[in-house]
Amino acid sequence: MRIKVIVPVSTEIWNRGIEEAYSAVKDSDTEITIVNLSKGPESIEQYYDIAWAELETLKEAEKAEKEGYDAVIIYCFSDPALFAVREKLRIPVVGLRESALHVAAMLGRRFSIIGVGSKNSKGKTLDAVRMYGMESKLASIRMLDFLVLDIAEELDNIKQALLKEAEHAIKNDGAEVIILSCGSLIGVGKWLQERLEVPVIEPGLVALKLAEDLVKLGLSHSKLSFYSPHRKRRIE
Amino acid sequence: MRIKVIVPVSTEIWNRGIEEAYSAVKDSDTEITIVNLSKGPESIEQYYDIAWAELETLKEAEKAEKEGYDAVIIYCFSDPALFAVREKLRIPVVGLRESALHVAAMLGRRFSIIGVGSKNSKGKTLDAVRMYGMESKLASIRMLDFLVLDIAEELDNIKQALLKEAEHAIKNDGAEVIILSCGSLIGVGKWLQERLEVPVIEPGLVALKLAEDLVKLGLSHSKLSFYSPHRKRRIE
Amino acid sequence: MRIKVIVPVSTEIWNRGIEEAYSAVKDSDTEITIVNLSKGPESIEQYYDIAWAELETLKEAEKAEKEGYDAVIIYCFSDPALFAVREKLRIPVVGLRESALHVAAMLGRRFSIIGVGSKNSKGKTLDAVRMYGMESKLASIRMLDFLVLDIAEELDNIKQALLKEAEHAIKNDGAEVIILSCGSLIGVGKWLQERLEVPVIEPGLVALKLAEDLVKLGLSHSKLSFYSPHRKRRIE
Amino acid sequence: MRIKVIVPVSTEIWNRGIEEAYSAVKDSDTEITIVNLSKGPESIEQYYDIAWAELETLKEAEKAEKEGYDAVIIYCFSDPALFAVREKLRIPVVGLRESALHVAAMLGRRFSIIGVGSKNSKGKTLDAVRMYGMESKLASIRMLDFLVLDIAEELDNIKQALLKEAEHAIKNDGAEVIILSCGSLIGVGKWLQERLEVPVIEPGLVALKLAEDLVKLGLSHSKLSFYSPHRKRRIE
Amino acid sequence: MRIKVIVPVSTEIWNRGIEEAYSAVKDSDTEITIVNLSKGPESIEQYYDIAWAELETLKEAEKAEKEGYDAVIIYCFSDPALFAVREKLRIPVVGLRESALHVAAMLGRRFSIIGVGSKNSKGKTLDAVRMYGMESKLASIRMLDFLVLDIAEELDNIKQALLKEAEHAIKNDGAEVIILSCGSLIGVGKWLQERLEVPVIEPGLVALKLAEDLVKLGLSHSKLSFYSPHRKRRIE
Amino acid sequence: MRIKVIVPVSTEIWNRGIEEAYSAVKDSDTEITIVNLSKGPESIEQYYDIAWAELETLKEAEKAEKEGYDAVIIYCFSDPALFAVREKLRIPVVGLRESALHVAAMLGRRFSIIGVGSKNSKGKTLDAVRMYGMESKLASIRMLDFLVLDIAEELDNIKQALLKEAEHAIKNDGAEVIILSCGSLIGVGKWLQERLEVPVIEPGLVALKLAEDLVKLGLSHSKLSFYSPHRKRRIE
Repeated sequence: MRIKVIVPVSTEIWNRGIEEAYSAVKDSDTEITIVNLSKGPESIEQYYDIAWAELETLKEAEKAEKEGYDAVIIYCFSDPALFAVREKLRIPVVGLRESALHVAAMLGRRFSIIGVGSKNSKGKTLDAVRMYGMESKLASIRMLDFLVLDIAEELDNIKQALLKEAEHAIKNDGAEVIILSCGSLIGVGKWLQERLEVPVIEPGLVALKLAEDLVKLGLSHSKLSFYSPHRKRRIE
Repeated sequence: MRIKVIVPVSTEIWNRGIEEAYSAVKDSDTEITIVNLSKGPESIEQYYDIAWAELETLKEAEKAEKEGYDAVIIYCFSDPALFAVREKLRIPVVGLRESALHVAAMLGRRFSIIGVGSKNSKGKTLDAVRMYGMESKLASIRMLDFLVLDIAEELDNIKQALLKEAEHAIKNDGAEVIILSCGSLIGVGKWLQERLEVPVIEPGLVALKLAEDLVKLGLSHSKLSFYSPHRKRRIE
Repeated sequence: MRIKVIVPVSTEIWNRGIEEAYSAVKDSDTEITIVNLSKGPESIEQYYDIAWAELETLKEAEKAEKEGYDAVIIYCFSDPALFAVREKLRIPVVGLRESALHVAAMLGRRFSIIGVGSKNSKGKTLDAVRMYGMESKLASIRMLDFLVLDIAEELDNIKQALLKEAEHAIKNDGAEVIILSCGSLIGVGKWLQERLEVPVIEPGLVALKLAEDLVKLGLSHSKLSFYSPHRKRRIE
Repeated sequence: MRIKVIVPVSTEIWNRGIEEAYSAVKDSDTEITIVNLSKGPESIEQYYDIAWAELETLKEAEKAEKEGYDAVIIYCFSDPALFAVREKLRIPVVGLRESALHVAAMLGRRFSIIGVGSKNSKGKTLDAVRMYGMESKLASIRMLDFLVLDIAEELDNIKQALLKEAEHAIKNDGAEVIILSCGSLIGVGKWLQERLEVPVIEPGLVALKLAEDLVKLGLSHSKLSFYSPHRKRRIE
Repeated sequence: MRIKVIVPVSTEIWNRGIEEAYSAVKDSDTEITIVNLSKGPESIEQYYDIAWAELETLKEAEKAEKEGYDAVIIYCFSDPALFAVREKLRIPVVGLRESALHVAAMLGRRFSIIGVGSKNSKGKTLDAVRMYGMESKLASIRMLDFLVLDIAEELDNIKQALLKEAEHAIKNDGAEVIILSCGSLIGVGKWLQERLEVPVIEPGLVALKLAEDLVKLGLSHSKLSFYSPHRKRRIE
Repeated sequence: MRIKVIVPVSTEIWNRGIEEAYSAVKDSDTEITIVNLSKGPESIEQYYDIAWAELETLKEAEKAEKEGYDAVIIYCFSDPALFAVREKLRIPVVGLRESALHVAAMLGRRFSIIGVGSKNSKGKTLDAVRMYGMESKLASIRMLDFLVLDIAEELDNIKQALLKEAEHAIKNDGAEVIILSCGSLIGVGKWLQERLEVPVIEPGLVALKLAEDLVKLGLSHSKLSFYSPHRKRRIE
């Protein structure tokens, strides 16, 4: 099984971490290829960044299907271009946010979404939770003032702050499950879960396992929901 | 008052019709400028097309604010890049779909959305209706098999087919209001309304009036909902 | 365009303020007539007051259509008799609460409703928000202990208290938009908006612009939603 | 126990039927007094009629509490003035529609509401179902073209038509419970239930039993939900 | 009228209290029989206990119908086996939780559920509130750390703690109605209601009155919702 | 990895088929043990059967954790005792229905649930869909008149009837994904999917992959949502 992982940003600083984390949990016969965008934003925090990333993500995904990959993972909690890619492709396309929300909903009755990206990144998440009909399961969205690009340098501070935020979500918002809202907090889920009474979801890992599952079960998104686009002129 | 209308496609065939329709209903002191995209799809029917249009739409909108416009209208029922643009701009940004849904909800208890674009264009509309929490007000979405680019040549057939579809929506789905789901069906709303017992909403016209209203009332979208993006490298 | 504004209370103390505020934002060719009720309550704060105002409001509205007005505004945040009037009339009938809720929903993801009238006036507003399917967008309803009839004498205190309440709603309830829940707080919206980071909606102004829009676009409420009443004996 | 039944119309033609039906199911120690309005509509089918009935209903209810009644029933499926009366009174106030919806929800997963009053009477019922958060339990609302005032003369035809409509609702809409949407179809519920596989709710009877229950249990509506109105001038 | 009350636990310590409370509010011609389970848990606090009680509850209920009872009450706020029993029986089957939720919804706009059983008992209640579509009416669920079996010895402490918790729910969560979430807090509802500004629902009493109502009105659950089970081998 | 599969019926006729199907899709290092109930129903179609199966299912699951299994699958679309088992166990417990609903929701916007078990089995499924907040994604529930125990003898007829029902769901109900509502229709999902344009979910297979995922990711249900039961006397 060959899975292409598109990290939809114009930097490759996350690739190595993703590769290591994926090695630890992937099926033995899964082959992972990680790519980035040649154009686009360095990080994705809100709709503005998504708009910068979508077309390039789409093109990478189209290439993946032609190259014979069995599935595509769009490795970002904002799920940029997820539905556009599904319309174009027939192979399974998995997004981190969608996967994480559904798995969280199976582990408890209310979840909190915590992460970096500042308040700027709350709106897009709330919109998705509403679109998926899960607002009543949302205990809270809590975003640290750290930005995505701070993660490398500030990892220890971010971990401590996330722990505090998660404890707050559990105690005051009624969270029973924690979702990390960023694919770049690799390994932090495990670290947090050891310090909390609740499961902590790393969306990147959940997405990988769901992608493998769909391939193995011969399932993919419905083409009656995500229709293949009409041919027309689209100027690059 | 100066409003920039971005028709987010790579063709200018609709501009003239929009200009004429806008002239008929705009406030006397409103000045309208209509622009298109230099890159992008010829028409927008589904997420795939949206992904091709978003970044260019965003750039046109950013230019508009710098040029001193008082408001921006994204003239497409798919509202491409609507929230991304709001994050970047402070002036009001109005989308056709959002405006049409809210005005329809004030004119009756259930609405149907009819238009061209084939079944391919249903999913994105349902997603938006769900995100806005309006699914229980949705009587149906009925899309003709004609495509957006057929409108010029097939206008008479399309009008007759829309009339039939609207009658069907009223009789069988319980529609009390009809929303046309395309900005390119200019003038068809009036024609339909004369032949039906219910109000018919042309989203392009509703969007214009709401844009004027917001400017006149000194209102714009909340920057606590649509935060201004962080500075970061975004490679073009 | 001639619009009749029914202020559904038995006092004319608000008329002048409304007239001035409307002059500032109305279209140049809009003619405004403001009337009150000869019977009814001095102010409307809860269902009890609404029951005292509805029949008289209805009669004023019926007269308006006969007099050739193009639209009716029921100038009260409780929207008394709004649906009853729509059943009887064919011209557009606009309510302050309904307009404000829909415009607020377009400016941000969560709004708070603040105003005077004490806790007594919360229930009716919550009922309406639920009926419109907008409860998940409601950050909070916060009503000062001042009454509507205190406004004239206590305006400065009320303004300060509203500012504090709005700040509270933004900080603690997550409000991204503020709706003033009373038509009598004329001019307070602008004053508040200058002191807050979020848009503040004065429902009376929004209602005026929507009424003008509907007339200009040839739209009115659906008579398949608001059926014309059957003839029958109704004893006065 | 003394219960005042307000039939909020200006005719007494229903009183005798109500009296007989109530005699058959009331507790032995319950004393029923039935009154009508001196002013108001002959029948209530839509918001327009409700607006004609509310203030008089309110006055009758206020009188009832002063006269020492233990509970008030507003005998009409439109629940006119129900919340206004609750604000003013401390004794339990029971409405037919609210009672019927809640009892129906306990007897099955989906109910249909059928009755007379023509399509004109559908909107108000849908609004209430939405406000109560029960729209997903609503299989359908089906209203015969007969009017309320046709009942006396057309009873046999109406019964046959209701039977047909109920069968339709069960077979095609998925109704598992039938609610009669009019207090004037006295005895028809029993007749229908004998001919159908599902329970049929006569709202008038359900309201009586709930009123007795509340009195016996020392329960009434919350005054923190239905606050007592402020004193103010209300001109008659 | 003969009603069988199944207290679905393996202890009879509550029976006397129930009997006394029921005597005070039942109709004069209602005959009450109270039974317990020979096998099963001593108290029911969460799904685990429910699983221990369901089959025995079902068998007791089946016996009741054969013995000619007119209705069955499953006397526990967890409504164990409620829907299973309805499938098997034709006579009305009333549960405490379902009854209490619906009556509470008629007395105010938001209710809190308070009781004993610790946090362990919150999940099952939230699930039911969601299934009934009432989550937006739920102000809060607040469970004391006392267990059900502590009630006898700790009654005074529990009463004081419940009072405090109810005051908290009213002040901070917006509760307008209080539901006691346990059938064993007999008499505590009255005691609390005398000390609070809101109605307090004792679910056991509400269930009794609803059971009597259904019998008197000839109503029972829909067999098109709760189908009679197929014959098949079920090994004991 | 060792997974215990509890087929919660008193017959082992399904075990072999499950074993074969699981062998084909399980991870190479997963070891499967399949067990049945010594007491209980032969098949599960509605709440009545569930009540017969729950306690025995619970005991088997408790045994599994003691025996050192890494996860438990309750192999039945009714998810009997799922939440009770989660309360008692710390290892992941996966149900077929819950898994299938969430995976279906990721593959399309509306799904239909089809299967055997007759109308009797619809209610429990609708309740679960409501509890999970997914009713707006439910296109329809369509149950053939065949019973679960008919599957062996009538497999060919059932397959043809399911194909017809699925085509109906797609064409008339708007289904974009099909869920088979029974664990015993092994292999039918693949057969159907080859004949339809939409994905078809076999809940048993989805449950297996999710169980493996959870174990591999070190995730399990939240003990703050599914609290461990208090010690108390529970009489067998």
